[in-house]
Amino acid sequence: MKKRAVILLSGGLDSTTCLALANKESFELFALTINYGQRHDFELKASKIIANLYNVKKHSILNINLAKFGGSALTDDIEVPKNRSENEMSNIPVTYVPARNTVFLSLALAWAESLKAYNIFIGVNSLDYSGYPDCRPEFIKSFEKTANLATKIGVEGEKMSIHTPLINLTKGEIIKLGISLGVNYGLTSTCYDPKENGDPCGFCDACILRVKGFHSISEKDPLRYNN
Amino acid sequence: MKKRAVILLSGGLDSTTCLALANKESFELFALTINYGQRHDFELKASKIIANLYNVKKHSILNINLAKFGGSALTDDIEVPKNRSENEMSNIPVTYVPARNTVFLSLALAWAESLKAYNIFIGVNSLDYSGYPDCRPEFIKSFEKTANLATKIGVEGEKMSIHTPLINLTKGEIIKLGISLGVNYGLTSTCYDPKENGDPCGFCDACILRVKGFHSISEKDPLRYNN
Repeated sequence: MKKRAVILLSGGLDSTTCLALANKESFELFALTINYGQRHDFELKASKIIANLYNVKKHSILNINLAKFGGSALTDDIEVPKNRSENEMSNIPVTYVPARNTVFLSLALAWAESLKAYNIFIGVNSLDYSGYPDCRPEFIKSFEKTANLATKIGVEGEKMSIHTPLINLTKGEIIKLGISLGVNYGLTSTCYDPKENGDPCGFCDACILRVKGFHSISEKDPLRYNN
Repeated sequence: MKKRAVILLSGGLDSTTCLALANKESFELFALTINYGQRHDFELKASKIIANLYNVKKHSILNINLAKFGGSALTDDIEVPKNRSENEMSNIPVTYVPARNTVFLSLALAWAESLKAYNIFIGVNSLDYSGYPDCRPEFIKSFEKTANLATKIGVEGEKMSIHTPLINLTKGEIIKLGISLGVNYGLTSTCYDPKENGDPCGFCDACILRVKGFHSISEKDPLRYNN
C-alpha cells in the first residue's frame, strides 16, 4: 500500500513544487488548502486546478476566518507594500499573518492523524522567505516534536514527519527543481494582490521574489506581468 | 495598563474555572471559543453566557469544520461511549478529536499575537483527562517552545506563556477552586452528548468525571441529571 501524505497546497509556486515532489516520491496524495480569508483568493482556484492535475486522492478546502483576528495586510485593509528594497524585505512585513504556519500545520496534523498519514509536506523556505519567523528550520523541528507529543500516533509509537524539501533552496533552485519535475508554473498563483483576472501585480514581495527566481536561472515565467 | 490574556473557553467546567482564575489575576480577558463541528454545540451557548458574565473585552467564536477530517465521536456519527469503567477510560477513546488542542492553541496564538497578549490560558488537565495525549504537560511545554519560535513576538524578544493552572489538579480540586472563585457551575456544559434542552446525559466519560468530581468533595452539581 502506498504511504499517505498530507500536502499543504496554497496554489502557489512553492507548494505546487512540493506536491510534484511528493507525487514523484510515490505518496498517496491528500492536498489541504486553507481558505483563511486572504485577499488573494485567486490562489484557491489555482489550488483546485493543480490538485486535479496531480490526481490527488482527496483535496480538502477548509474555511477558517483568520481575518477575524486581524493584524495582517493579507487579510485586512492594510495596504500590501510594493517595490520594497532587499533591505526592507529583511524585516518582518505587514503581510505576515500571525502564527499562520502553526495554524496550517496543526490542521494538516489533524487530518493526517485521521488518515493515518505519517507525512506532512509544507513548502516553507528559509532563504527567500520574506522574514517570516515560522519559515525557519528551528520552528519546523520544534513543531514536529510537538506534533508527536500531541497525537495518538506519537503515543502509539509511530512518527509524524514534517517534510520541508524546499527549506534550504533559493527561489531559483526551487523553480529549477519544479521544471525538472514537469511543473506548469503557468497554473500557479503567487501574487499577494492580484488583478481581478488573476494576473500578478508584479510589485509585491511575492512577485518580486518570483520574478527574481526565474531571472536567476534564465527561465521565463509563464505568467503575464503586463503592468 | 492591564496585561492581556487569551482564554480558550469551551463553556465547560474546566475552561470556565480557567477564565475565573485569569479574571482574578487581573488580566484583560479575551475569550476564544472554537465551533469545530462538535455534536455538543450546547457548549457554544454556555460559552456566550459565561463570557458575558465575566465581562470579557472580546469574545470570538471561530468556526472551523474539523468534522471534515473525521475520526472522532465528538464530530462524526460514531456513538459516544457510555458507562465506561475506569480501566476502559485509561485508553484513548473514540471521543478523541485528532490534534484538537494543537489546533486550538495555534488559533489562540494567532489571536494573541495580533492582540499583543503574551498569555494564553487553557484548561487542560493531566489527571482526569480521559487519556488524551494533548493534555499532558510535556505537550504543553513543547507547544510553548514552538509558539515562541513561530511568532514575531518570540523574534522580538517577548515571551508567549501558555498557562495551564488546572493541569495537576483532580476534578474535585478544580471544582473546589472554582467554588472559591465564585464560579456558577450551573451555567457550564460538560456532557459530550447532551439532551436537546442541554441537560447532561450522565453516562459519557465527561459526565462521569464531573459527577465523581463533585461527589469527591461532597458538593452538589447544580446541573440536572434526571435520567
